[in-house]
Amino acid sequence: MQKVNLDEQLARFSEHWSPRVVGELNGQHVRLVKLQGEFVWHHHADADELFLVLKGRLRLCFRDREVPVGAGEFCIVPRGVEHLPVAEEEVHVLLLEPCGTLNTGNVHEARTVVDPEHL
Amino acid sequence: MQKVNLDEQLARFSEHWSPRVVGELNGQHVRLVKLQGEFVWHHHADADELFLVLKGRLRLCFRDREVPVGAGEFCIVPRGVEHLPVAEEEVHVLLLEPCGTLNTGNVHEARTVVDPEHL
Repeated sequence: MQKVNLDEQLARFSEHWSPRVVGELNGQHVRLVKLQGEFVWHHHADADELFLVLKGRLRLCFRDREVPVGAGEFCIVPRGVEHLPVAEEEVHVLLLEPCGTLNTGNVHEARTVVDPEHL
Repeated sequence: MQKVNLDEQLARFSEHWSPRVVGELNGQHVRLVKLQGEFVWHHHADADELFLVLKGRLRLCFRDREVPVGAGEFCIVPRGVEHLPVAEEEVHVLLLEPCGTLNTGNVHEARTVVDPEHL
């Protein structure tokens, strides 16, 4: 029953697109990630994914629309839905997704993180 | 893929100890709740529960310690662990817990919410 301070944990890393695990409950990971630039189109076959924006403005692109998500807002991407996160400027995000979820989903590329670091 | 603005949703209700559902993913509910005063000692036999404080200061009391949780901090209460949330002044909290989790856990009392409203 330790509390986690989001700002303190965010200060512990600077790499983009490299999620850190800060909590686990009911088979889900709470992860923090810093985004900048454009990611890769991907989907998660068996995982719904929540993006809660803590700082900045995230563009969540889908094949048929785009959802801008600002600080204090979240968006849930259902399993199987292709998405492309884009951050014009640095964005800080709290992610919620099942433990074991690959950040790049069905795609393997340079930024794929198989086993994210626990802070 | 609708985004949810936390402040907008919090403005839609004022009752204390009455969680509202604002999202669902992987069998989990994202709930918002406003707390003021002292709740009731309880535990959730099969559910870990995350308290992310959005506003104010929550005192999470356990039988052997107390964890103060401020805005921008979260605490995960593991299943089976008795806890008592206390809010000296109004506190706004984002909860994450399995769908179907009773707010009062193993205790049934006046503030028990069996089927929380979806906003």
